[in-house]
Amino acid sequence: MTQETISTKAVITPAEMLEHWQGHRRLTRRVIEAFPEKELFSFSVGGMRPFSELALEMIAMGMPGIDGMLTGKWSTFEAIYEGGRPTTKEALLALWDELTEKLNRLWPEIPAERFHEVDVAFGQYEGTIQFTLFYFVDNEIHHRGQGYVYLRALGIEPPPFWDRA
Amino acid sequence: MTQETISTKAVITPAEMLEHWQGHRRLTRRVIEAFPEKELFSFSVGGMRPFSELALEMIAMGMPGIDGMLTGKWSTFEAIYEGGRPTTKEALLALWDELTEKLNRLWPEIPAERFHEVDVAFGQYEGTIQFTLFYFVDNEIHHRGQGYVYLRALGIEPPPFWDRA
Repeated sequence: MTQETISTKAVITPAEMLEHWQGHRRLTRRVIEAFPEKELFSFSVGGMRPFSELALEMIAMGMPGIDGMLTGKWSTFEAIYEGGRPTTKEALLALWDELTEKLNRLWPEIPAERFHEVDVAFGQYEGTIQFTLFYFVDNEIHHRGQGYVYLRALGIEPPPFWDRA
Repeated sequence: MTQETISTKAVITPAEMLEHWQGHRRLTRRVIEAFPEKELFSFSVGGMRPFSELALEMIAMGMPGIDGMLTGKWSTFEAIYEGGRPTTKEALLALWDELTEKLNRLWPEIPAERFHEVDVAFGQYEGTIQFTLFYFVDNEIHHRGQGYVYLRALGIEPPPFWDRA
């Protein structure tokens, strides 16, 4: 049985999933870029966090999350904050791009079986690896959608949702 | 080779994916419920659509979308609007629940191979079925995240994002 035949039992294969995640991350990067520097770190609606904090949460999940998914060793979710928060758009985007490269580098090492193992993400959240993985991606989509409202409230046209190039 | 062994090449299997989607849909249903009747159909931020319209878009994708994913026959995306828009929360939730049952009924009939076939969704959007499927789910998460901002701007605590029960 070939690899291709085997993978037809999947809704989405590991290779497709990496592209799915990185496609979303390319869009989120454009949303970060769309914010004026000041508003990125200060503007919000309804008492919520500014978009810089939402983007940093995405990085805070993904940066140790890819290690945990691969190895089963989870550092704390808060690790990313220990070096201090980025205070410029450029520094935030540099962290973003660092994670992009890290995902591309480590993802292919995850055995496909691993996605169905139960683990305790960050030592706190029990579930299969696929559940945790989709939590990362869905949390990004959720908060990015909030960023779209912030941009609209600022009178800025957000990048198109359908464009993941 | 058993079904179980085969499915380990998946990040997410068809059965897991249905639960994933319906879990998100259960949360979105609670977001609809959290809006006061009037604000559901009228309130927005930054000139965007009210949450009733965002929820109706989700139904407008899913209701004909599940037929298209299963059969390859796509009615128009606009079909849901032809009978007139629901004008009460109760009517919107009734449509929501109709789709919940339809997904549970038809999903198991989709052959797993189908998710990797290329099709033209609604006669307009070319891609694999998994791409189109994730577009439906991700579009829901995206717009629901916007609904969270509307609720916060109204001073209403949204339901917790992590609860999909």
